[in-house]
Amino acid sequence: MKNLDEVFEHTLRDIYYAENQLVKALGKVSGAASNGEFKDALGQHLTETKGHIKSLDAVFKSIGQKASGEKCDAIEGLIKETDGIIEDTKAGAARDAALIGCCQAVEHYEIARYGTLREWAKVLGHDDAHKLLSVILDEEKAANNKMTNLAVSSLNEATKA
Amino acid sequence: MKNLDEVFEHTLRDIYYAENQLVKALGKVSGAASNGEFKDALGQHLTETKGHIKSLDAVFKSIGQKASGEKCDAIEGLIKETDGIIEDTKAGAARDAALIGCCQAVEHYEIARYGTLREWAKVLGHDDAHKLLSVILDEEKAANNKMTNLAVSSLNEATKA
Repeated sequence: MKNLDEVFEHTLRDIYYAENQLVKALGKVSGAASNGEFKDALGQHLTETKGHIKSLDAVFKSIGQKASGEKCDAIEGLIKETDGIIEDTKAGAARDAALIGCCQAVEHYEIARYGTLREWAKVLGHDDAHKLLSVILDEEKAANNKMTNLAVSSLNEATKA
Repeated sequence: MKNLDEVFEHTLRDIYYAENQLVKALGKVSGAASNGEFKDALGQHLTETKGHIKSLDAVFKSIGQKASGEKCDAIEGLIKETDGIIEDTKAGAARDAALIGCCQAVEHYEIARYGTLREWAKVLGHDDAHKLLSVILDEEKAANNKMTNLAVSSLNEATKA
């Protein structure tokens, strides 16, 4: 990568890969969760994640590139950590609390990446990409806030477990 | 892990491992960076990171546990991603922009983890741990804000490169 354009395209492919991995991971987390509100939130975020993939398709198109992913080591690590929690816990409130924490870690990763991508799109003059990435960023922030509320409400259950 | 106490202790060991890995990684990133302000910020964050390790020692002590780390897959992934950027770029403004993005991804991971740990400490009645973790969280947020400002100021250079 020799310039910001190439760094921008690389990071787009990185987050495109990440979103596609998350589609698979969210189903697994939902299957391991017990709390109904948490399961609902995961289902809703799965729908949003599929929407983000379509938006990223549009971002690639807007800069004249074909949509494609490139292995993202960070999301691989975050998903591996989440799988470890599922292996090391039984279904119940303590597992749910730990999994909500993992979802927030993933949301924060995405917030960091989309925040950066959006700013890069702006200075590179990719106005359509900037708009699309801003919408995704706002949805990731809203998803994280929902997880924060869930974390607090689920803790009463977890301390009783 | 059968209850929130065990989940809390596991996550403490996870972030303890992560902070120790970051001490090594920050030096490497600083060596690869060109921008003077960025290098200064990395040096300052290295000092803070060493302080966080001492604070975590105190957190472990406050709950009657010996400080120890446990492999954290998420930080391994985040560091691997950062190493990949160093391999795929040459020294200069575009590399710096990409590395600042990686630092923000790491900060966001830490913000997510300390935010969760702090809340868990509170509901578990670990008041000293809650206070110590809150101080670390505030420093991670401040470090992330500094990186955001750096990201914006470094972009003018990167677009000229």
